[in-house]
Amino acid sequence: MGKIADMYYMVNPWIVSEKGFEKSRSEVSESIFSLANEYMGIRGYFEEGYSGETLIGSYFNGVYENSPKENHVKYKGIVARSHFMVNAVDWLYTRIWCDNTPLDLANAEIDNFERHLDLRTGILIRSFHWKPNKETKVKLIFKRMLNMEEVTQGYQTISIEALEGEANLTILMGVDFNMLHKGEGQNFWQEQVKSANHDSATMIAETITTKQKIYAGFSIVASKSLDTRIVERDKFIGLKFNVKLKESEVFSVERKATMIVNKTGINEENLNQTGSQALKSQVSFNIVFERNRKYWENVWSKEDIQIEGDTRNQQGIRYCIFQLHQTYHGQDPNHNIGAKGLTGEAYGGLAFWDTETCCLPFYLLTNLAAAKNLLEFRYYTLSQAKERAKQLDCEGACYPIATLNGHEACDLWQHASLQFQPSTGVAYGIWHYVNVSHDKEFLYSHGIEVLIEISRFLVSRGAWSANGEFGFFGVMGPDEFQMMVNHNAYTNYMAKRTLEYTIEVLEEMKAIDRTNFHSALEKCGLLEKEYQSWQVCAEKMVVLKDENGLIEQHDGFFKLPQLDIHSIPIDEFPLYDHWSYDRIYRNNMIKQPDVLMFLFLYNQSFGLAEKQVNYEFYEPKTIHESSLSPSIHSILASELGKDQEAYQFFEFATRMDLDNFNRNTREGLHTTSIASAWMNIVYGFGGVRTDGKELMLSPTIPEKWESYTFKITYQERLIQVTVDRKAVKISLLRGDTIKVQIYHEVKEITNIPLVIDTRK
Amino acid sequence: MGKIADMYYMVNPWIVSEKGFEKSRSEVSESIFSLANEYMGIRGYFEEGYSGETLIGSYFNGVYENSPKENHVKYKGIVARSHFMVNAVDWLYTRIWCDNTPLDLANAEIDNFERHLDLRTGILIRSFHWKPNKETKVKLIFKRMLNMEEVTQGYQTISIEALEGEANLTILMGVDFNMLHKGEGQNFWQEQVKSANHDSATMIAETITTKQKIYAGFSIVASKSLDTRIVERDKFIGLKFNVKLKESEVFSVERKATMIVNKTGINEENLNQTGSQALKSQVSFNIVFERNRKYWENVWSKEDIQIEGDTRNQQGIRYCIFQLHQTYHGQDPNHNIGAKGLTGEAYGGLAFWDTETCCLPFYLLTNLAAAKNLLEFRYYTLSQAKERAKQLDCEGACYPIATLNGHEACDLWQHASLQFQPSTGVAYGIWHYVNVSHDKEFLYSHGIEVLIEISRFLVSRGAWSANGEFGFFGVMGPDEFQMMVNHNAYTNYMAKRTLEYTIEVLEEMKAIDRTNFHSALEKCGLLEKEYQSWQVCAEKMVVLKDENGLIEQHDGFFKLPQLDIHSIPIDEFPLYDHWSYDRIYRNNMIKQPDVLMFLFLYNQSFGLAEKQVNYEFYEPKTIHESSLSPSIHSILASELGKDQEAYQFFEFATRMDLDNFNRNTREGLHTTSIASAWMNIVYGFGGVRTDGKELMLSPTIPEKWESYTFKITYQERLIQVTVDRKAVKISLLRGDTIKVQIYHEVKEITNIPLVIDTRK
Repeated sequence: MGKIADMYYMVNPWIVSEKGFEKSRSEVSESIFSLANEYMGIRGYFEEGYSGETLIGSYFNGVYENSPKENHVKYKGIVARSHFMVNAVDWLYTRIWCDNTPLDLANAEIDNFERHLDLRTGILIRSFHWKPNKETKVKLIFKRMLNMEEVTQGYQTISIEALEGEANLTILMGVDFNMLHKGEGQNFWQEQVKSANHDSATMIAETITTKQKIYAGFSIVASKSLDTRIVERDKFIGLKFNVKLKESEVFSVERKATMIVNKTGINEENLNQTGSQALKSQVSFNIVFERNRKYWENVWSKEDIQIEGDTRNQQGIRYCIFQLHQTYHGQDPNHNIGAKGLTGEAYGGLAFWDTETCCLPFYLLTNLAAAKNLLEFRYYTLSQAKERAKQLDCEGACYPIATLNGHEACDLWQHASLQFQPSTGVAYGIWHYVNVSHDKEFLYSHGIEVLIEISRFLVSRGAWSANGEFGFFGVMGPDEFQMMVNHNAYTNYMAKRTLEYTIEVLEEMKAIDRTNFHSALEKCGLLEKEYQSWQVCAEKMVVLKDENGLIEQHDGFFKLPQLDIHSIPIDEFPLYDHWSYDRIYRNNMIKQPDVLMFLFLYNQSFGLAEKQVNYEFYEPKTIHESSLSPSIHSILASELGKDQEAYQFFEFATRMDLDNFNRNTREGLHTTSIASAWMNIVYGFGGVRTDGKELMLSPTIPEKWESYTFKITYQERLIQVTVDRKAVKISLLRGDTIKVQIYHEVKEITNIPLVIDTRK
Repeated sequence: MGKIADMYYMVNPWIVSEKGFEKSRSEVSESIFSLANEYMGIRGYFEEGYSGETLIGSYFNGVYENSPKENHVKYKGIVARSHFMVNAVDWLYTRIWCDNTPLDLANAEIDNFERHLDLRTGILIRSFHWKPNKETKVKLIFKRMLNMEEVTQGYQTISIEALEGEANLTILMGVDFNMLHKGEGQNFWQEQVKSANHDSATMIAETITTKQKIYAGFSIVASKSLDTRIVERDKFIGLKFNVKLKESEVFSVERKATMIVNKTGINEENLNQTGSQALKSQVSFNIVFERNRKYWENVWSKEDIQIEGDTRNQQGIRYCIFQLHQTYHGQDPNHNIGAKGLTGEAYGGLAFWDTETCCLPFYLLTNLAAAKNLLEFRYYTLSQAKERAKQLDCEGACYPIATLNGHEACDLWQHASLQFQPSTGVAYGIWHYVNVSHDKEFLYSHGIEVLIEISRFLVSRGAWSANGEFGFFGVMGPDEFQMMVNHNAYTNYMAKRTLEYTIEVLEEMKAIDRTNFHSALEKCGLLEKEYQSWQVCAEKMVVLKDENGLIEQHDGFFKLPQLDIHSIPIDEFPLYDHWSYDRIYRNNMIKQPDVLMFLFLYNQSFGLAEKQVNYEFYEPKTIHESSLSPSIHSILASELGKDQEAYQFFEFATRMDLDNFNRNTREGLHTTSIASAWMNIVYGFGGVRTDGKELMLSPTIPEKWESYTFKITYQERLIQVTVDRKAVKISLLRGDTIKVQIYHEVKEITNIPLVIDTRK
C-alpha cells in the first residue's frame, strides 16, 4: 500500500507531545491536538491568531448548514442540496500585543516551543518563549480543556511571564462568529444579540438557512485587577485590557466559556437567559480539571488497551480510544459519528455506514448505552429515511449514505441512489446490538419498526430476474470501484439476512409479546401476509458462488478484465484524483472489502475454508483506497493464521493520524478508522467475535509485542484479557460467571482468572 | 407511444399557414416559422415586440458561449464547463406606435391575422388588421427572408395601410444585442462599437468568454422620405421616425441587414469596414426574393418527395426537407447540425451522433458535397477529439457526445465518458460516404487519419476479459436506459467494423497509394505493427448471440428483470422527469434501438431471419423516448414485410413539429428527427439501402397512399423513383446508365425508365 510514517510527535504511552514548532506541520497538529466532548469539538489551532496556514475549526455536534450550491444534475431522487457541519464559533479568540508587536507564531521570534496533550486528563498545554523585541522576552503558557461532564463548558488559561525586560502587554479576548467554512469559502452565521460588561461578554448567532442558534459567552478572572474595554465588531465581541509586567513577574488569566446550542427553535427566546445563568454558575478551571481527570480515569479503567514492547502502538491505540471517546460516548441519541469526528470539515462532518459497521463494535464492548444511542439515532431519523425511500420510488426506509440530520446529504447519485449498505448496516447494527445485549425491549419497541421499514425498502428496491431469482440490480456495494452492478454479493447477502431477521423477530414477538407485535404492525401499517411474503425473497436471494465456496462479488465479476494492482504507479494514487473517473470502474480491482466484509460481519455463518478461499482471491485485488479496509483484512488474516500479513495490515492502524500516513490529517482525524484500529486489536489479535451465541476469543499475539491487555464489557461483565507469548489470561473484573468460547471451546469465566497456555 | 397530433396549421402541399392568432400557440409558431440559411437562423417571433410568452431567438452557426455554471462533480474526464449556442442579435428589431399606442399582439385589438411560410421561396409573410383606437384601423404586412446565397444577408419589409381613419405612426427599427439566453436567464454580449446615420445603423458586439464577434448593420429604404433620429441604448442602436398616413394611404419600409460573424479573431479589426462595405452593396428585397425562388426551385428539383393521396404527409415531408436544407446544406465544413438546428436553444444547439447516423443519409443521396463537409467537420475537430481521449486516459481520438466546437460539451459523465457511438458513428459515416461516393481522395488524405485515431481510441478503451475476449466494459450504448454495461452489442460490433475497415483501408493504401499510406502513418505516428495488432481485437470482439441469431444487447441483458412497458402509466412519461433516476436503469426496457440500430446501419451484413428474430425480441421492449427511434423501427418493419407496423411507426415522423406531437416544439424544431422522417420514406418505404456494393431499392407503398415519388443522387446520377399501387418506375433523370439492385435483383437503369409491375 506504500504508506510511509511521518514520525514527528514524541512517543510516550500517555502523552502526545510536540517539541519545537514547524510551520509546515501546523495544520496537522491542529487536527492531532483536537479536543472534544461529543457536544462540541475544537481543533488545536493557535487561539492568539496565526497568519500562516491554518484551519480554525470549532464544531458542534449536529449543527449544520445547507450547501449554498445546488446540485448540477437534476433528476428525481438526486439530492438537490447537500448539508454539512458548519464551522461555528472561536470561543478561544485571543490577541496579544507586547509593546505593540502582535503575537503571531508565523513571524514571531520564539523558542522552547512545546505542546502536550495528556490522554489521562484531556488537557492541552502549549508553552514557548517569545522575544517581541530586543529587550523583552516573555514566556507564555496556554491551557485549554472541555468539561467532559458539563458539556457546554470550555476553559482556557493563559499565563505570561516577563523573562527578560519589562513587558507592556495588551490582550484582547473574545468570541468570534466570523468563522469561514474553508470548503465553501464562506461564513454561515448571522449575529443576533451581544452584550458585555467589564469581565464577561456574550453573543448569540444563528445559521443562515437552518436557523440553528448558538449562545457563546465567557467570563474572565485574572491574577491582577483589569481595566477592560469592550470591543465590538460584526459577529464579534470581546474585552481588551493592558497589563504591565516587571521582569520575572507573572500574569495569568482564566477564561470560563459556555456554549449552548439551540437546534430546534424550541425555547430559543430563553437562550440568552439560560446561557447567562449557566455562565455565572461555571466553576473554576482547577475544579473541572480534577473532575476531568477522574472522568478519564474511569474511562481508561474500562476501555484501556495496554501493549508491552511496542510504545508506538501503545501510544497509538490510546490516542485512538481517547479521540473516539471524545467524539462520541452516547451522550445524546441525536448525535452520530462524523467521518472526521469534530476535528475538521472534510466529509462535511457527515456520518456514514461506518457508524454501524466500524464504530459500533467499540461501543458494544465498552459502552453499551452509547451503542444503543447510535441505533436510537437511526430510529429518530426513520421518517427521513422513509422520505428518502419515496424519492427513490421505493417503499419503507432507505438510510442515507451520508447525513447529519437524517436526510441524505450525498449529492452524487451514483452513491446515494445505488448504495444500500447504510440500510442493511442499520439492520445489522440492531441485530448485533441485540445479540450482545439481549435488549429485547429496544428491539420490540424501536428496533422492529426500523427493521420492518428497511425490509420493506429492500423488497421494493430488489427485483426478480428473468430466471426467477431475487436480488438487486444496478447497485454499488461497499466496493465503490464497481458501479451499477447486478447481484452484488454484499448487498444481496446483507438484504437476505435483514429480511430473515425481521421475519424472525416478528414471529418471535407474535409468539411472546403480542402487544408490541400488534403495535409494531399497526404503526407500520404492516399485514402478516406482507412480511411473510418477504420469506421467498430471502430464499431466492442470489449469492453467486462456485464449487469451492468462492463468492462472485457480482454477476460478471469473474469475467472482468484483470488488473494487476501492483502495476499501478504509486503517484497515481489516490486513483480518484489521477484516473479518468470512468476508468476506475471497469476492471477487477477492489477499493475495499465487499465479499470479505460480510464474511467478517456474519463471521460465524461461514466456515474457515470458505473464508480462506475468498480471502485469497479478493485480498490481492484490493487497493485499500479506504482507511477502513486494512483493518478488516488484518482481522481476517489473523483468523486465517496469516499472522505476518495480519500485522502488516495493522501496521498503520493505530497511528494513521499520529504518523499522518495518508498525508491528509491536516483536514481532520480519520475518526472512523480510529474505531477500526481498536477493532483490529480486539477482533483481530484478540480474536473476539460477537456474532455468535457466546462471546468468542481466539487470541494471537504479534511477534513484536511482549504482551497486550484489553478490557471489554460483555453482558455486564467487565472482562480483561491479557495475552503474552506464553499464555492467555482471562479475568473477570466485574460481574457474574459467564460462558465464553475460547479457541472454539466453551469455557466458564469466574472470578478466578482463566489461564490458557498457548505454547503448545 | 400515445402521441396525439395537435392539428393547427393549414394543410397545403407547399405552404405552411396559420389563420387567426392564438396566444397559446405563439411559441410553437415561432419554431415552425423559423428561417435559416445554415449561416444563421431566426425564429418566427414578432419583430415588433410581444409581451406574451416568447422565445426571441437569433442564432449563428457555431457562435457559442461557455456555460456560466461549473460542473458540480469534479473528477478527471468529467467536463468542467459546458458550451452552448448563444442567442445573438435581434436584427429585425422593430417597434410601432400608432397615436402613441404601441403595437403588441398580446394586447392589441386585431383581426384577419394570417401567416404563411412558402416552401418554394422561403419567404415568411404575416399580415393583420390592427385597431389602435376607435377611429383608426391599419393593415400591416411583415415579410422576412434570408438570402440563401449571400448568407450574411437578411431582409425585412413592413407595409402599413391606413384602412380607417388617419394613422400617426412612430416606428423604431434597430439591432439589439440585449438577447437573453432563456435557459441561463442571461445575456452574453458586450457592446464593442456602434454608429448610425440617417438611414443606417451598425453595431459590433462580442461574446463574454469566447470573444466571438458579430457585426450587425442595416439600412432602410422607405416609400416616403423619412426624418430619422438615432436611438442609442446599451447594446442597441436604431432609427426612429414618424409617418403620417391619410386614410387608405400605404407606407412601406424595407430593411436590408448584414450580419457578419468573426469567430476566430483573425482580421477582426477589419470587421467594421468589411461589414459596412457589405451592407452598402446589398441589393434589394425583390432581387433577392427572385434569386431565392430559383435557389429553392433547384433544391426541389433534386430533393423533392411527392406523395399523392396524403396531403398531410406531403406537406410534412416537404417541411422536413425545407427545414433540413435551411439548417445545413454543406456551406462550410465548420458547421454541423444541432439537434434543434438554428431554431431554439434546447440541447444547446449542440450536434450529436445523430449527424452521422440520421442526417448523413439525406445528404449522401441529395447533396454529396454537404455529406463530405459533415465528415470534414470531424476531421477539423480531430485535435479536440484527441484531447478528449487523453482526458479519458485513452489514446487516439474520442469524438464528443455533444459539441459545437469539437470539444465535449456534455457534462454528465455517464454519457460523455461511457458512450462511444459518436466515435464509431464518425467511422461509420466515413465508410458510408466512401461506399456511396468512392471518394478515395478524401479517404486517403483526411478520412484515414480520423479512422486511425478512432481505432486507436477503441483499442485503448476496450479491454480483454478474463476469458480472453475483447470488448468494452462500463459503457452505455445508444440505448441510454442501460448504463455501465459490459459487451454492449452496438459498441462492440461498431468497434469491430471500425477496426476492420481501418485495417482494410490501410492495407489498400499500402498496396495502391504508398505516398498517402506513409504520410498517414507518419502523421499519426503509427507503425504497421500497431495497426496490424488491432486485427486480433476485431477478431476476438464479443457479440453475444444465441443459436437463433438473437443478439444479447449486453452481457446479462437476458437475465434482467422484465418490465412490461405497457404497464407504465402514460403520465409517467417522459420517464426522466417522473422516475427516480436510477430506476430507469435496472430492467429490460429500451429507450431506443441498440441492436436494431446496427442491424439497420450495416443492413447487408445480416440475414432477414436474424433481423426478424431481433426485431421481434427488441421492438416490444422499446419505449421510443427518443424521437429518432420510431423511424428506425419503421424502416426495419418495412424490410420485414410488417407494412402496418411500418406505417404506424411512420405516422408522426413527417409532422412531428407541424402537429407538435411531443408538445415541445416551442423549444425548437426536432431537426435531426426531421432527417429521419426523410430516411423513413426513402429507406423505409423506398427500401433504399446504401451499405452494399450497389444501390438497392425494394419499394413498398403505404395502404393510404396512391403514389409517391422521390429523387436521389447516387454516383452522379439523378434517379427518380415513383411507386404506386401497381408498379415501381425508376427513371434516370441525369447521368449514365447504372446497375442497381431492385428487390435484390441487379438491374440496369438507363434513360428509358424501368417499370416493375408489383401487383404479382
